[in-house]
Amino acid sequence: MATSEQKKFIQQIDANKAGLIDRLAKAVSIPSVSGDAAYRKHCFEMADWLLAELKALGATAELKPLGKQVLDGQEIELPPVILGYLGKDPKKKTILVYGHFDVQPALKSDGWDTEPFKLEYDEKSGRMYGRGSTDDKGPILGWLNAIEAHQQVGLEMPVNLKFCFEGMEESGSVGLDELIVAEKDSFFEGVDAVCISDNYWLGTKKPCLTHGLRGIAYFKLAISGPARDLHSGVFGGVVHEPMTDLFTIMSKLVTAKGEILIPGIKELVAPLTEEESKRYDVMDFSLSDIEGATGSKTTVSDDKATVLMGRMRYPCLSLHGIEGAFSEPGTKTVIPAKVVGKFSLRLVPDMTPDKVNELVTKYVKEEFGKIRSKNTMSITSEHGGKPWLADPNHWNYEAAIKATETIYGVKPDLTREGGSIPVTLTFADTLQKNVLLLPMGRSDDGAHSINEKLDISNYIEGTKLLGLYLHEIAAIK
Amino acid sequence: MATSEQKKFIQQIDANKAGLIDRLAKAVSIPSVSGDAAYRKHCFEMADWLLAELKALGATAELKPLGKQVLDGQEIELPPVILGYLGKDPKKKTILVYGHFDVQPALKSDGWDTEPFKLEYDEKSGRMYGRGSTDDKGPILGWLNAIEAHQQVGLEMPVNLKFCFEGMEESGSVGLDELIVAEKDSFFEGVDAVCISDNYWLGTKKPCLTHGLRGIAYFKLAISGPARDLHSGVFGGVVHEPMTDLFTIMSKLVTAKGEILIPGIKELVAPLTEEESKRYDVMDFSLSDIEGATGSKTTVSDDKATVLMGRMRYPCLSLHGIEGAFSEPGTKTVIPAKVVGKFSLRLVPDMTPDKVNELVTKYVKEEFGKIRSKNTMSITSEHGGKPWLADPNHWNYEAAIKATETIYGVKPDLTREGGSIPVTLTFADTLQKNVLLLPMGRSDDGAHSINEKLDISNYIEGTKLLGLYLHEIAAIK
Repeated sequence: MATSEQKKFIQQIDANKAGLIDRLAKAVSIPSVSGDAAYRKHCFEMADWLLAELKALGATAELKPLGKQVLDGQEIELPPVILGYLGKDPKKKTILVYGHFDVQPALKSDGWDTEPFKLEYDEKSGRMYGRGSTDDKGPILGWLNAIEAHQQVGLEMPVNLKFCFEGMEESGSVGLDELIVAEKDSFFEGVDAVCISDNYWLGTKKPCLTHGLRGIAYFKLAISGPARDLHSGVFGGVVHEPMTDLFTIMSKLVTAKGEILIPGIKELVAPLTEEESKRYDVMDFSLSDIEGATGSKTTVSDDKATVLMGRMRYPCLSLHGIEGAFSEPGTKTVIPAKVVGKFSLRLVPDMTPDKVNELVTKYVKEEFGKIRSKNTMSITSEHGGKPWLADPNHWNYEAAIKATETIYGVKPDLTREGGSIPVTLTFADTLQKNVLLLPMGRSDDGAHSINEKLDISNYIEGTKLLGLYLHEIAAIK
Repeated sequence: MATSEQKKFIQQIDANKAGLIDRLAKAVSIPSVSGDAAYRKHCFEMADWLLAELKALGATAELKPLGKQVLDGQEIELPPVILGYLGKDPKKKTILVYGHFDVQPALKSDGWDTEPFKLEYDEKSGRMYGRGSTDDKGPILGWLNAIEAHQQVGLEMPVNLKFCFEGMEESGSVGLDELIVAEKDSFFEGVDAVCISDNYWLGTKKPCLTHGLRGIAYFKLAISGPARDLHSGVFGGVVHEPMTDLFTIMSKLVTAKGEILIPGIKELVAPLTEEESKRYDVMDFSLSDIEGATGSKTTVSDDKATVLMGRMRYPCLSLHGIEGAFSEPGTKTVIPAKVVGKFSLRLVPDMTPDKVNELVTKYVKEEFGKIRSKNTMSITSEHGGKPWLADPNHWNYEAAIKATETIYGVKPDLTREGGSIPVTLTFADTLQKNVLLLPMGRSDDGAHSINEKLDISNYIEGTKLLGLYLHEIAAIK
C-alpha cells in the first residue's frame, strides 16, 4: 500500500513517461560497445553524458580513469568508472547502486529487425528495441528517473545514494575489482547495502529478487604426444593418440544425464532446507520457458523444481570444446599432436574453486594413470569464482519485497541464478554488506542477442520499483 | 647380376648424373601447386614442359583436359592429365607408369632453409632440397631419365610404356578416376601391369616394394540439442548437453590402447599367415624410426612387429576433431548447440566401407539409445575407400625384386602402407591388373613438409632401378 508521498512519486513517473523514454533513446543512440577498439570513443561519450545527467540531478560525481588496455592490437584507455553520490545525511541509510553503461556489439547485419542503436518503440507489443535498452542502460536510467521524479514533485530522497557505473562490464570489468578494493575505505565508506539492477526476471510475468549466483571453476586438460600433427593413415594404430586419451578422460567427468562423476563434489553441496525447497514451487516458471529460451525440448527433467534447482542450487559440469583438434567443416584425417579440452564446473555453496580444483586435479590424474598412455597430460585451473549467496531475510530484501508488492501486486520470486556476475561477489566480499539483485527486465529481453528489447511497462514500473525500494528502506524500523 | 646391356644403361646413368640433376632442377623450378588458384598457370606450364620432354624422347603423348573446378572462389580449368605411350610392339609387355607433376604448397616463410622452388644440392649430405624433389617430380623424371639413357647408348626399350601423369594428386585427383574408367578400353587397353612410384621406403636404409594400402571409412557423428549455443551458467544443469553426449559416445569407439570397441570389426580382419608374419621381422625398421618421425616416444607397443602390423595390416580408429564446439584459445563458457564429431577407421582386408558403415552405424545408434538423451543424433558415412592388396608373388613384383637386388644388393622389404593412394585402387579395380608401388625416396624425405628433399643416391640409383625393373619384366619367362 503506497503512502501519499509514494503516490506522488508514482504519478510523476507516469506523467513523465515520454520524457523517460526520450532519456533512454538518447542513451541507446550512443554505441558504447566496450569490446571493440573502434567504438571506444563512444564509451567515453557515454560516460560524459551520464556524468552530466547525474550532475544535473545534483549529484556529486567524477570519472575515475582505470588506465590502459591492449585491444585489437592497440593500446587504448579503459573506459572510466563513474563514482558519485547524492546526499550525505547521517540519519539516512546509504545505498550503493551499480550498473554499467557499456553494451554488447550490435550490427543491423547481425539480423536485427531495426537499427540497433536507435530506440524503436513498437506500440502494439509495448516493447522498446535497441542495444542496451535492458542491458543495462534502462536500469541505470531507472535510478536517474526516480531521483528526477522526486525533485519534480518536491520530495526529499529517502536515503543517501552512491553510484558506481562502469563501462567495461561486457568485456570482463577490467580494473573494476581493483578500484573497489582501493576505494573500500574512501568512496565506499559508509555504504549500508548494495543494489544491482543488471539481471532479469526468471520468466516473463512475475518479478523476482535474486540472492544467489553460482561460481565457476574452469579447467584446461592438455594431452600431448607427437611433436607435430600426424597423418592417421601412416600413424593410426602406431601411436597413442592424444584425442583418444582426451575423450576417454573427459567422458569420465559427467554423465549424459548431467551427473558429475568426480568423487567428493556432491558432498560439498549445502543441503536443501525446507524453506528453500518451498521457493521453487511458487516460482513463475514452467518448462516451456526453458523450451522457448533454448528452442528445444531437452531439459534434464520434466519436473519444474528439479530443473530450477539444476540451474540455481546444484553444481553442473559442461564440456566446452577442444583446442588443437580439427574443428573446420570437411573431413581431415589428422591425428592432432596436442589437444586441450576445456570444461568448467558451476559452483554452489559450500564449494570453493580451491577445493574443486583439488578434487578435479586428483581425479583426472588418477583416471589418466589408469589408461597407461605414453602421452603427457596436464590439468590446469584457469579461472575460478566463488558462489555468492545473500541472506534474503535482510532488510535490503525486505524493502525490495514490499516495494515489489506495491508496484506489481505480487510477492516476488526469490531466485538464484546459474551464471556469475563477478562484481556482486566483489561488493559482498570487499564491503561485507548485503547485496541485492533487483532486475528491471524480463527473461526474454535478449540481452546479448539481436533485437534486444525492454518492455515499456518494465521500464516505467521498474523505475517506480527502484524509487519505492528506497522508500521502503527508509521505512524499515 | 646385371647383364651387359643393363651395365651399359647403368654406366650411362652415372655418366649423365649432372644432366639428370639439371632436369630435376628445371622441374622443381616450376611451382606447380595444384591447391592454390594463383599457381594454376604453373600446373599448365609444368604439363607443357613434361609433354615436350616426353615428345623429345619419341613418345606419343597428349594433354587430356578434365574440365573446370571452383577453387578459391573462382571457376578455373583443371590441370590436364598427360596420357602417352612409347612403343607398341605386340611381342613386348606393356607397363603403365603413373606419377603426378603437381606439388604441395611451399613458401620460404613456412620455415624452409632454402628457396622451395629452387633445387639446392647439399654436397655434404648428398641431398637435393626442393618442393616436389621426392613427391613426385624425381620419380616421374626417373622414367624419362631411364628412357633417355637407353637411347643414348643405343639400347632398345625392353617393354612398351604407357604414361599417366596427373596434375591434381595433391588436391584430390579431381577428374582422374572418371578419365581412367572412360579410357579403360581405349588408352589403357593392353596394359599388362601397373607401376606407381609415389611413396617411400619404410626407413632410410633399405628399399621396399609396397603391395598393400589401407582403406578408409570416415564418419560424422552429429548431436544437436538447443536451437542456439547456450550460456553454461544459465543452462548448465538444465538441459542435456550435446557435447556430453558426444564425448560419451565417442569415448566408446576406441580405447586409449587403440583397441576398436565396435562389435564385429575385428572379425572382418583377414587372419595373419605365417608367410606374412615373417616379413615384419626382416623389415628395415626400428622403433626409433617412428620416434624420429613423430618426435615422441609414444608407440602403442615396444615390439617392432606389433607396431608395423598396427600400421600395415590391422585397422585403426582415430578421433580427428569436433565441428561446432569451442576451439579457440581462451576460456569460453559455452554449451555448444550442435556438435559434429569426426572420426575414421583405416580398413584392411576383408573390411569394406559398406560393412564397416553398417557396424559403426548400428553400434553408435545403440550406444546413443543407452544414454537416453533428449538430444538428436545422426551418424553419416562421409567417404570410403576399400583397402588394396596386390599379390607380391606376381611377375610384376618378381621383376622389381630382382632389379632391386641388382641395384641395391639387397632383397627389398615387402611392405604395406597405412594410408591410401586412391589411384592405386582405381587402376587395380578398373584395369584388373597387378599394381606395384615402387618407391624412389626415403621415409625421411618430408614429402609434405618444409625442406622436402631427395637424396642424390636415391634419384640416381632409383632411376637405374626403374630401368632395370623394365628389363627384368622382359626377362620373365
